[in-house]
Amino acid sequence: MVETAREIAAALGDELVSFDLDDIERHGYSDWSSSNSSGRPVAVVYPKTTDDVSRVAVICSRHDVPIVPFGAGSSIEGSFSSPYSGVVIDFAHMDKVIAFHPDDMDVVVQPGMNWVDLNRTMEEEGLFLPLDPSPTATVGGMVSTNCSGTNAFRYGTMKDWVINVTAVLADGRIIKTRRRPRKTSAGYNLTSLFVGAEGTLGIITEITLKLAVVPKETGVAVVSFPTIADAASAATKVIRSGIQVAAMELMDDTQMRIVNRHGSEAVRKTKWDETATLFLKFSGPTKEGIQGDISRVRELMVPHSPTKYFFARNKREEADLWAARKEALWTMTSIKPEGHAIWSTDVAVPISRLAEVIELSKKDGEKLGLFTSVVGHVGDGNFHEALMYDPKNHLHKAAVKEVVNRMMGRALEMEGTVSGEHAIGMGKIQCLMDELGDDTVEAMRLVKQALDPKWLLNPGKVFELPEGSSAVAADRA
Amino acid sequence: MVETAREIAAALGDELVSFDLDDIERHGYSDWSSSNSSGRPVAVVYPKTTDDVSRVAVICSRHDVPIVPFGAGSSIEGSFSSPYSGVVIDFAHMDKVIAFHPDDMDVVVQPGMNWVDLNRTMEEEGLFLPLDPSPTATVGGMVSTNCSGTNAFRYGTMKDWVINVTAVLADGRIIKTRRRPRKTSAGYNLTSLFVGAEGTLGIITEITLKLAVVPKETGVAVVSFPTIADAASAATKVIRSGIQVAAMELMDDTQMRIVNRHGSEAVRKTKWDETATLFLKFSGPTKEGIQGDISRVRELMVPHSPTKYFFARNKREEADLWAARKEALWTMTSIKPEGHAIWSTDVAVPISRLAEVIELSKKDGEKLGLFTSVVGHVGDGNFHEALMYDPKNHLHKAAVKEVVNRMMGRALEMEGTVSGEHAIGMGKIQCLMDELGDDTVEAMRLVKQALDPKWLLNPGKVFELPEGSSAVAADRA
Repeated sequence: MVETAREIAAALGDELVSFDLDDIERHGYSDWSSSNSSGRPVAVVYPKTTDDVSRVAVICSRHDVPIVPFGAGSSIEGSFSSPYSGVVIDFAHMDKVIAFHPDDMDVVVQPGMNWVDLNRTMEEEGLFLPLDPSPTATVGGMVSTNCSGTNAFRYGTMKDWVINVTAVLADGRIIKTRRRPRKTSAGYNLTSLFVGAEGTLGIITEITLKLAVVPKETGVAVVSFPTIADAASAATKVIRSGIQVAAMELMDDTQMRIVNRHGSEAVRKTKWDETATLFLKFSGPTKEGIQGDISRVRELMVPHSPTKYFFARNKREEADLWAARKEALWTMTSIKPEGHAIWSTDVAVPISRLAEVIELSKKDGEKLGLFTSVVGHVGDGNFHEALMYDPKNHLHKAAVKEVVNRMMGRALEMEGTVSGEHAIGMGKIQCLMDELGDDTVEAMRLVKQALDPKWLLNPGKVFELPEGSSAVAADRA
Repeated sequence: MVETAREIAAALGDELVSFDLDDIERHGYSDWSSSNSSGRPVAVVYPKTTDDVSRVAVICSRHDVPIVPFGAGSSIEGSFSSPYSGVVIDFAHMDKVIAFHPDDMDVVVQPGMNWVDLNRTMEEEGLFLPLDPSPTATVGGMVSTNCSGTNAFRYGTMKDWVINVTAVLADGRIIKTRRRPRKTSAGYNLTSLFVGAEGTLGIITEITLKLAVVPKETGVAVVSFPTIADAASAATKVIRSGIQVAAMELMDDTQMRIVNRHGSEAVRKTKWDETATLFLKFSGPTKEGIQGDISRVRELMVPHSPTKYFFARNKREEADLWAARKEALWTMTSIKPEGHAIWSTDVAVPISRLAEVIELSKKDGEKLGLFTSVVGHVGDGNFHEALMYDPKNHLHKAAVKEVVNRMMGRALEMEGTVSGEHAIGMGKIQCLMDELGDDTVEAMRLVKQALDPKWLLNPGKVFELPEGSSAVAADRA
């Protein structure tokens, strides 16, 4: 494989291929991921153009060498691991806006572009990509995992914002799935097929994104409830009212306790109830509209025994209230004992089952005597559970894995999915089989086989490799 | 092939298979379609269950007989024609709601269900499927063409409302693309792959649909402008303001003239300006919100030289104003001379190019001296042009075809699509090649080949059949 990487270096230029061991390690392992492999790439390629990527694919295809695309490296399911070695393609140099069309409300970007940076460049035109994943995420990774975040209830998930992708197929051919219409019914929806495929069908090198209008006015409210069930039923009432809240997030008692004690100063100055709490964001073109929405939501909450309301009176208060939600992840990380790990995962279920699945999963985790906390995207029936444990303690680790498995099983019993927004990676391959059954997964494999007959693109993700496939088997953790 | 159909009748029951010639004709030809084939099915099968469909597929697959799914028969691109004969599957008996889950805001239906009927059954719960195609359309056809209509600007297209489909594959295997979560990133998006595939990848036998909350309050406004360019730039202003109008439709001078003269009594009592006219629908949870939106829109229109405003003051006026838009199709049909045909087609382009593509296409049609009219879904950059002609006059027909081809070419030059909401059928196969190029269409064909290796599912749609494929070649118009 190293010879293949050398051939790539000769073709693209030595400065675009790294054999540095630290670089390789950084692209092969992540502390954030609950699924790591012992496999490592032989090199990291830093292409500058779609043609560079195509040349890499041609060379790798000739020598049966796996190709693993790499974005921000923030996957928690091992989507960028290299269990069969090969070369990693890092899009660090392909991080530009190629064309911005404010009048058409779209933008063409390279996969290495960070979404926060992208939104900053479009601020003046009052347009944005209304997704909200980790601030480190790159557009390529967001596309490949069909990410979402707190804005999904209002704006949908990544698949709803991709107009077309340019992808390099396994043999080096370059295809563009669409031109630039906002709507089409011409031929198969290859765009949506590539979104969420984790780079296993093609390597995405360019993306045209739909944009939304940045709302002129915003509002934030935080409401606490005695139980998760109360919070969920209040949320359902809001959803069914047709009031279009911009986001509706749930944090559990554990999360609220951490925020009270370990949040930033701005967050700690509010005395939060340490119970199930809903965070609501409002947005729209007029102040009156938002005021109307807020007072309507307040009325709707009353029958659900709210224990405390906070309504922001100005931009500053909005930021301070919402910060409590935004800090959920880092406050948790900040209290993690040295050497401990966080197993974070998510599922989504039909909305009516959300409270039940959360309460059961939470109890199950707490029974272990481990730190267990929950944040949920209530409007989508999606929630994250985080479990803190000592990875060197094998009993602990096995117990956490078992809790996670039971959470997956429970979501499936409720007709849900094993991954609401983090894709399958290596960690949930068996879960995907459990979710959809052999025949449906077989249909997916047929599509994979048709577009990548040698199984060279990001092998070992989404599915196990078929017997006898070309990718060289490496040790697997 | 007739023997195969007899075998199906023996398996399913004689009463579920029709060999009646009128029935066959009705399933093989349509006056509404600009693409008809001289091929006819040998029989029409009326399955009652997914298992029935699976049995049909097993039998057809064994004998290499094509299967063509049939919904309402309202395709205008020949999506349900039988150019290679075979059997048609008509879902008339599979027209039921299987499960309605108001708390999860979804519904499971059979493909033969009419969407207007479906929405009526859900009225009491205040939920609806927010698409708006022809009132005759069935959910199966809507899914298979990725339909939309006047509500797409606010609510998106069919692909945005399908949670999962159950599909019978070419060999009879039954797959379900998802369970019932509103959001997922687990595995490939087979759901979106089947939406818009025109029954060429699998026969859809069950669909789970997301539902939206019926807005409590509505409003309607109609505004006329000197030119299409003025109307389009006013529309763009509204779009960029972030005001979420429920629909924004454009009708040209010709359409307005017809409506003035041939509309229903309720419509004719308004004296419409016979110029480019925008029809706007507003909807939301509160009266105040809608009033605010309407006055804001009025302000935004001022710089674009509006010549006449109509704002509905009550429900009755709303219905009367909107009726002018709704009657566009039938008023045109009503003035069509005996024996004449209407060639209706659509394209979509990036929004900023809409006025230009409409004006050029309209002029091009008018140069023929033929009746040419335009209605547009402005918010999506999508418009329909209708040309009236005498199909027995071959020169006329060829000229109309040429105008349509130029309209497609123009849309592609502007980075648009050759089909905004009517799919490819038989009529736009070459256009699809022009739109996406050989390599992209080849990727689609690889997917087709993987899932239907004998090319038996709705052959001759989306693509030409490959040389030497099993489906028996029949005469082609």
